[in-house]
Amino acid sequence: MNGAESLVDTLAGQGVDICFANPGTSEMHFLKALENPRMRSVLCLFEGVCTGAADGYYRMKGTPASTLLHLGPGLANGLANIHNAKRAGSGMVNIVGEHSAAHLKYDPPLMSDIEGLARPLSHWVRRVDGPHTVGWDVATAVAKASEHPGQIATLILPGDASWLEAGNVPALPPVQPARAKAPEAARVEHIARVLRSGEPTLIVLAGRATRGTALELAGRIKAATGCRLATQFFTARIERGAGRVSLERIPYAVGQALEYLKGFRHIITVETTEPIAFFSYPDKPSLLKAPGTGVHALAEVDEDSTAALAMLAEALDATRTAPVLQARAEAIVPSGTLGPATIAQALAAALPENCILVDESLTTGRETMGLTVGAAPHDLINNMGGSIGYGTPVATGAALACPDRRVFCMVGDGSAMYTIQSLWTQAREGLDITTIIFANNSYAILKQEYANMGAGAPGPQALAMIDIDRPRIDWLAMAKSMGVRAAAVDTAEAFHKAMVDSAREPGPALIEVRL
Amino acid sequence: MNGAESLVDTLAGQGVDICFANPGTSEMHFLKALENPRMRSVLCLFEGVCTGAADGYYRMKGTPASTLLHLGPGLANGLANIHNAKRAGSGMVNIVGEHSAAHLKYDPPLMSDIEGLARPLSHWVRRVDGPHTVGWDVATAVAKASEHPGQIATLILPGDASWLEAGNVPALPPVQPARAKAPEAARVEHIARVLRSGEPTLIVLAGRATRGTALELAGRIKAATGCRLATQFFTARIERGAGRVSLERIPYAVGQALEYLKGFRHIITVETTEPIAFFSYPDKPSLLKAPGTGVHALAEVDEDSTAALAMLAEALDATRTAPVLQARAEAIVPSGTLGPATIAQALAAALPENCILVDESLTTGRETMGLTVGAAPHDLINNMGGSIGYGTPVATGAALACPDRRVFCMVGDGSAMYTIQSLWTQAREGLDITTIIFANNSYAILKQEYANMGAGAPGPQALAMIDIDRPRIDWLAMAKSMGVRAAAVDTAEAFHKAMVDSAREPGPALIEVRL
Repeated sequence: MNGAESLVDTLAGQGVDICFANPGTSEMHFLKALENPRMRSVLCLFEGVCTGAADGYYRMKGTPASTLLHLGPGLANGLANIHNAKRAGSGMVNIVGEHSAAHLKYDPPLMSDIEGLARPLSHWVRRVDGPHTVGWDVATAVAKASEHPGQIATLILPGDASWLEAGNVPALPPVQPARAKAPEAARVEHIARVLRSGEPTLIVLAGRATRGTALELAGRIKAATGCRLATQFFTARIERGAGRVSLERIPYAVGQALEYLKGFRHIITVETTEPIAFFSYPDKPSLLKAPGTGVHALAEVDEDSTAALAMLAEALDATRTAPVLQARAEAIVPSGTLGPATIAQALAAALPENCILVDESLTTGRETMGLTVGAAPHDLINNMGGSIGYGTPVATGAALACPDRRVFCMVGDGSAMYTIQSLWTQAREGLDITTIIFANNSYAILKQEYANMGAGAPGPQALAMIDIDRPRIDWLAMAKSMGVRAAAVDTAEAFHKAMVDSAREPGPALIEVRL
Repeated sequence: MNGAESLVDTLAGQGVDICFANPGTSEMHFLKALENPRMRSVLCLFEGVCTGAADGYYRMKGTPASTLLHLGPGLANGLANIHNAKRAGSGMVNIVGEHSAAHLKYDPPLMSDIEGLARPLSHWVRRVDGPHTVGWDVATAVAKASEHPGQIATLILPGDASWLEAGNVPALPPVQPARAKAPEAARVEHIARVLRSGEPTLIVLAGRATRGTALELAGRIKAATGCRLATQFFTARIERGAGRVSLERIPYAVGQALEYLKGFRHIITVETTEPIAFFSYPDKPSLLKAPGTGVHALAEVDEDSTAALAMLAEALDATRTAPVLQARAEAIVPSGTLGPATIAQALAAALPENCILVDESLTTGRETMGLTVGAAPHDLINNMGGSIGYGTPVATGAALACPDRRVFCMVGDGSAMYTIQSLWTQAREGLDITTIIFANNSYAILKQEYANMGAGAPGPQALAMIDIDRPRIDWLAMAKSMGVRAAAVDTAEAFHKAMVDSAREPGPALIEVRL
């Protein structure tokens, strides 16, 4: 067994059984090791797809995937979606190929400071010393990635550590599932007092608290105390739809968020911080709560929020209080002009039960997602890091994590172009993904932001940097180029029908929504 | 004048009059400042296109372009082509937007360690302190980028430094053109003695020594002494073709390079190092020269190689020796099957005088470019950093630098997919670029490298990571999706005709070469 084989074998033994790869010369022995039947390897035509797919995989599965990247530039290409994954608390194990140690001193063309590139966005970085230790190194990487919340672990693998004999590799004990820290009882007691006060209180849920038992407990607490429940504007994954506890959404726009929050005397945070503005603006605050609002952390991001909510429900005698559950909204198929409201209605009517909705729609979906809350139960995924081009890769990884669930990926045209290579992997792997392109031929959000920034109305040069209408992207041709079937729609009823049709047969589909 | 306006005004005043941009919210005031009529702004749909275009612009113009990137992830997306530019000695000024200083302490979603991301691949990094100093900061960045060789200068621009008033901005003196260091006379004398010895000697030229006066001087020295002239396998820019001094090319494959170099007793380097292997392989050396070969540096990368070659020619009494110039090869249009040789023949016959040839063809073009040396005079550009996806962005920047010259960009299908968004900018700007896609539906080079690495023949899983034939990319649809006219060819004569046709009308074209 050589080093690369030891690495892949250990990865699989530790439960990491998928690798999103874009290899180069220095990773040829790793490629050979991928013949290991316990490892599934998925080729991506750009590294941003690899790292985004690993993020999507983690969001749905809760365990890390691995990536295989070619030297410093390959890692660099994956960094933006590593940033997004890091902000989402998604664990991943990045394997970055490197020249053999003896070759580095000649400063070959592809050499760069890989540690330097990895550190700003990794929680853990290590360079493999040789073939004998690579198993131990990658097991440590998996353990790190599997912490709560998930961590970015980056392992640099020199060629000689791959190709040299590893000798007898001892079997390592499997990684233990991540254990979150126990919540503090005193904090729970304090928050119970806040809630008993009857003062207007908002609980802001994030991380693992927006699904499963935690979400149900939050619903009981709401029912028992009259508090309200919300998420930040962006959340890593929410279980929502009919039959679930509904969460309000703190608005994105600073003015609307201030207005939303001004009635609350207390904000209780669960795996998140108090609400802050996404960007800074000349005459707008960064902190969004009203003056005098108290902020109380029930669970920090590394703490067990389910346990904390259970303790809180107990303290409030709410463990048997029935939560109010979202009713199934009547599925009305809208017709006529496509706009945010009719788009949301069409979505609500078309989304099949148990689907996964990846949202990177920015302008189009921003303020109307609330209209889909009465849809069939589904998971909703948002971009946590704000770097565009996360949607189609995350959808790719989510579909591989959940092969029995269709993924709907809503994405603006500007965002979609960042990592459009995802479509090819979706076609190759036959993934059940419906990509919905909101084609407004513009980075439309920037028109709003231009004004929000106090820059007034954009002049011709500024508009030329915002509008992407010359040429208009032909999305049907784009889908065809990578082997994905596609349809274009320009009415609400056609949009609804295209979504329903897309789910009728397996494999990827693309819908261009012409706005 | 606010900080952003001061920045753009100073950039233009210092001679940087083009900005390859992909802005976000934090750059809205910069966008407003781009209304400055002295600055041309070019929108790219992915940051790797911005930085690659800046590289191509520098290669042809010799002065830096600027880029506008959105926070840490925007910079990260541009890093791979910054790596390639750095290795090519191309200067560029990257402006990276950042949150305002007061917002950073809240750790907003898009925050990252921008300095940390910038440093590994920048020569110079600075964070703007405020609107009053931004002019000085960017002038320093331009001066740094304009050194010899060109440098990567990265300036981080917080939002408040953009939008706050800069007050009276003093006009700064313009940046002086880069001056290379003077060569050492003693070294020149020593090398003259080596050449007079009559022992087999190879001069390896790079940087600015592969064109203009330097190239002609090298030709005189060759004619006077019988030495041979070569380049490394990859060179930033070569003036070649009929009527020019021809340069041999040290082979890429280690075995062939060893064979090529074994006859030389001396290697004289000009703006480069002695030949080294691109990658490390288990049983192959990194250093390619024969044992006992002496290596003598005539000019280091930061020295004036033209002056050094002039001094050397003087010492050898070769200043009036006529160089042997490349004859125009008879332009024979090949016919029949497409293969490396017929492709090169078709190129040689079709390339119009004074065109620019960007080569990222890897497998297809690798060993046959020599067959194009008798073509009409042209410039040849190679990838110096080895990170794929450099070709189409560099072609974009080269076309903007030289609007009166057609650019031919030869690119493998795997490489093209990395930064395929370039096509859109080419269509938007109406650039005279012919993109030639060598569609072998494979990262074909990796099949060779798999064996070179001693990994034997790839198994099914490895092949699944090398072949990109499922699905086959439909390049005609891809070109159409971004508004570029296209043709597919599967014979040598059709390839020749498509190249000629592509140059008949202005604007971009794509040729799919079906292999």
